[in-house]
Amino acid sequence: MRPPVRPAPQTIQRLVEIVGRSNAIVEAQEMEPYLREWRERWIGKAAAVLKPQNADEVSRILKIANEMLVPIVAQGGNTGAVGGQIPSDSGDEVVMSLTRLNRIREIDAVDNSITVEAGVSLRSVQEAAEAADRLFPLSLGAEGSCTIGGNLATNAGGISVVGYGNARALTLGVEVVLADGRIWNGLRRLRKDNTGYDLKDIFIGSEGTLGIITAAVLTLFPRPLDRATALAAVSDPEAALPLFHLANGISGGRVTAIEIIPRIGIEFIERHSPLRSPLGAPAPWYVLVEVAGAGPSGVLQLAMEKMLGEAFERQLISDAAIASSEAQRRSLWDMRESLSLVQKAEGGSIKHDVSVPLSKIPAFLREATAAVERLIPGARPVPFGHIGDGNIHFNISQPVGADAQAFLARWEDVSKAVFDIVLRLGGSISAEHGIGRLKRDYMPIIKSPVERAMMKDLKQVLDPNGILHPGKVLP
Amino acid sequence: MRPPVRPAPQTIQRLVEIVGRSNAIVEAQEMEPYLREWRERWIGKAAAVLKPQNADEVSRILKIANEMLVPIVAQGGNTGAVGGQIPSDSGDEVVMSLTRLNRIREIDAVDNSITVEAGVSLRSVQEAAEAADRLFPLSLGAEGSCTIGGNLATNAGGISVVGYGNARALTLGVEVVLADGRIWNGLRRLRKDNTGYDLKDIFIGSEGTLGIITAAVLTLFPRPLDRATALAAVSDPEAALPLFHLANGISGGRVTAIEIIPRIGIEFIERHSPLRSPLGAPAPWYVLVEVAGAGPSGVLQLAMEKMLGEAFERQLISDAAIASSEAQRRSLWDMRESLSLVQKAEGGSIKHDVSVPLSKIPAFLREATAAVERLIPGARPVPFGHIGDGNIHFNISQPVGADAQAFLARWEDVSKAVFDIVLRLGGSISAEHGIGRLKRDYMPIIKSPVERAMMKDLKQVLDPNGILHPGKVLP
Repeated sequence: MRPPVRPAPQTIQRLVEIVGRSNAIVEAQEMEPYLREWRERWIGKAAAVLKPQNADEVSRILKIANEMLVPIVAQGGNTGAVGGQIPSDSGDEVVMSLTRLNRIREIDAVDNSITVEAGVSLRSVQEAAEAADRLFPLSLGAEGSCTIGGNLATNAGGISVVGYGNARALTLGVEVVLADGRIWNGLRRLRKDNTGYDLKDIFIGSEGTLGIITAAVLTLFPRPLDRATALAAVSDPEAALPLFHLANGISGGRVTAIEIIPRIGIEFIERHSPLRSPLGAPAPWYVLVEVAGAGPSGVLQLAMEKMLGEAFERQLISDAAIASSEAQRRSLWDMRESLSLVQKAEGGSIKHDVSVPLSKIPAFLREATAAVERLIPGARPVPFGHIGDGNIHFNISQPVGADAQAFLARWEDVSKAVFDIVLRLGGSISAEHGIGRLKRDYMPIIKSPVERAMMKDLKQVLDPNGILHPGKVLP
Repeated sequence: MRPPVRPAPQTIQRLVEIVGRSNAIVEAQEMEPYLREWRERWIGKAAAVLKPQNADEVSRILKIANEMLVPIVAQGGNTGAVGGQIPSDSGDEVVMSLTRLNRIREIDAVDNSITVEAGVSLRSVQEAAEAADRLFPLSLGAEGSCTIGGNLATNAGGISVVGYGNARALTLGVEVVLADGRIWNGLRRLRKDNTGYDLKDIFIGSEGTLGIITAAVLTLFPRPLDRATALAAVSDPEAALPLFHLANGISGGRVTAIEIIPRIGIEFIERHSPLRSPLGAPAPWYVLVEVAGAGPSGVLQLAMEKMLGEAFERQLISDAAIASSEAQRRSLWDMRESLSLVQKAEGGSIKHDVSVPLSKIPAFLREATAAVERLIPGARPVPFGHIGDGNIHFNISQPVGADAQAFLARWEDVSKAVFDIVLRLGGSISAEHGIGRLKRDYMPIIKSPVERAMMKDLKQVLDPNGILHPGKVLP
C-alpha cells in the first residue's frame, strides 16, 4: 500500500469533468457541510467534493483515483457516529457524496423486494414499502437523513434488529464499484442462491474500505396487522431477560423491540421534558416492549395483558402499563427516544455502544457501573438500549456540579475500563455504529492476529493502493 | 496454484500419526463408504481417510497438507447432492471426516444460542434445542445424518427457509481452520457486532474451498405454540403467490413452509404409495402451507379457515383441507416428502434445484415445461418445491415406456435449456445444493468476469496452494 499523495490540480480537473462543474465543489467554504461531523467531533479537509449521479460516474472517478492514488471518502447522509464519513485534515482526500444516486429502481410486492440506489434515504425506503402495503423494518434515529448506502456500509442496527435483523439480514443483493473502477452487479433478488462465495457480505459493514455500494436489493415484510406496547417496572436487569422470553413466546418470536431504561433515565426525562412515566412508584429499572403480529387487531393486547399478569405473579415485574391508544404508544416511544436529549441537560456525557451475549447483560451492567464509580466517584451511568440483542448504550453523565470538560477528558480511561469488561464477557465494543476513526486503534486489542491478517489480506486484494477510506477501520 | 502431487508414504504416515492409527483408514475397501456418493453418482479414490477429533488435530493435518501439497476433502455426513464431499478418482487426495468433532459445547436458552462442533448431526441440534424449550428451525431431508459442518459449508436450505432463513442466517459465529493450519476462533454469540469485516460469511457456503469450519454458534428461536397446516387446490401457479401473501398476513410473517405440488405429483403418490390426497376433484396444482405462531393453540387454525375462505371467494383456490390433528398434518407432509421416492417408480428422472424471484415463478414453470416438452416429447415435468423463497425442484420423469438410460443421457441438454430460462429470469441454477463438482463448469456462464475474479482472488488469498477441495466450486 503506497502512501496517498496530494492530487495534482489536473487530476482534480479530470475528476470534476466526470460529474460536471455543477456537481463538484472545490471552494473550501462550500465544502464545509461535507467535512463536518454533526456533533463537530471531526472536522476534515478535502481537495474536492464530487457528486456523481450513477454507478458509471462512480466507476470513472475510482478508476482515475486508483491510478493517481487519490484517497476517496464516500459519504451518504453524513450521519455516521464514528467519523467514517469525514476525511482527514490532510486536504489530500476527495469526498464522493452519493446523494444524487437517489432513484428507487423497482419495488415488487410479490417478491417482497425493493431495489434502490445508495443515496435514497432510509425514510424514503420505509415510505415506498408502506405505499406497497409492505414493511421495511430498519429503523433508527437518523432515518430521515441517513442513506441506504451508509446503512449498508455500516451494517446499521437500530430498534427493530431483535425482530427483523440488521441491515445485512435485510439485503438480498448489492451493486458495488471496486477500488479500480470495476462494477460488480450483484443485484440479485433471490432468497436462495448457493452458487459460489458470498461476496455481498464482504462489502456490507466494511465501511467503504473495500468497495463502494451504489445500489441494493432490500427485502420487505408483511405489515403487522396487530401490535401491543407496554412499559414494565422491574427490580433489576436479571428480570428483563425472562420478560423478553415471555414476550417472545406470546408473539411467536415477533418481539419487534425491547428496550431497557434505568430509573435515572426516567428522572432525567421527567426533569427536562414534558413527558411523564405512566407508572406510579419509582422502580430501579424499566422495560419497554413491543410485539407485532397477525390480526385481528386487539389479540396481542390481550396476550400482552396475560403475559404481564404472569410476569407479575412470577415477581418479575412490580408494575406495568399497556398503551391503549396510538397516542399512548407514541408517548412511551418518545420517552425512550428523548434519552440522549435529556442527558445533554445534565452536563457532559461519555458514551459507549457495546453488546454482550444476552445472558451476560446483568453482569455487564453491574461490573461496568462499579468500574465507572471507582474511576470517577459521583459519575452517573445511564445505561439503556436494545436488550433483546444484547446491545447496551452505556452512557455516563458527569457528577452533579463537576466540570464538563474535566469529565470528558476521562473518556479514554472510562472506555478502557468499560471495554475490558465487555471483552471479558465475550462482547463487542461497537455493536452498531462501526469502527471508523473512533475505534480504529482498538482493533489490535479486540481482534486476534489471524483475524487481523485476514482483514488485511482482504483489503490488499480489493484495494491494493489503499485509496478507499484510508485511516478508517484497519489499524 | 501448484498442481497437487501424490502424497509420499511418509507424508501419509505423519498425517496418520496426528489422529492415531485407530482413527485413520488406509485400506481401499475400508475407505469405500467415504468415497461413494449415496446415489453412486460419484465414486472417488483417496490416499487415506483421517478422522481428527478436534480443531487442533485438523490444524495439524492442514499444516502438513499445505506444506506437502496434499489435497484435502472434508466430509461430514456424506449427504451432499453435488459431489463436493467426494474426492476425485486420482487417489492423491486425503479425506478428512469430521464426524468425531461431535460435541455440543454449550446451549444457552437465555441467549437463544447453541455452540456445536462440525460433526454434530442436524437432528442432534434440533433435539438439544427442543430439550431446552427452543427451536432450531433448519430442516431438510437428510437431517438424521447430515452434519452442521456440512450444512454450513453448503449454506443449507430446506423447508423452513421462508420462515427462518438458511443456514447462514442461523449462524452467529464460526471456528475455522485455514488452509495453512491457522485456527480462527470466531465463535462469537452476539446479535450485533460491527467491528470490522464479516469474515464468517466468507466461509459459510464456500463448500470447504476456503477453510474448514470446525464449530459454530447457532441461533435458537422460541418454539411455536400454535400451528396450522392446509392443502389447497389451485388452478395455476399464479394463484399460489397471493395465497402465500395471504398466509403471511394471517401469521404476521410466520409462514414456516409453503410448497407447491403439481397434479402429476399427486397422481404418482396415489399410484405408488398408500397416501391419498384429502381433496376431491383433481386440480392442476396444489399448495401445502403451514403457519406457526404464538398461542393460545387453535387461533391459527381459525385464522387459516378464514384465510382459505377469503382465497375461495377471490377464486384463488377451488378446494382445501386443513389438518385437524397431528396425524393429518403428518400425512400431508408425508405426501410432500414422498415425491422423490414415488418419482423413482416412474423410471428415470432428470432433476434441477433452481430459484427465481417469486414473481417469476409462473413464467419459469410455463417456459421450462414448454422447453422440456419440445426437447423430449412425452417427458413429464414434476416441478415442486419451496415457492415462498422461489426455489423449485424442477424434476422431469421420463416418457412412459421410454428407455431410462436414453432419457438420462439427455440430462445436459435438458439442463442447458432449463438453466437458460432460469438465468434469463434472474434466477440461480443452484438454489440450495451448491456447486461442488456437478455445476462447476457452469460457473463461467453464470458469473460475471468481475465476480469470478473476486472469487479467484479470495481463493488465492486463503488457500494459495489450492489444497482445499480441488476441482470443486471454482472453474
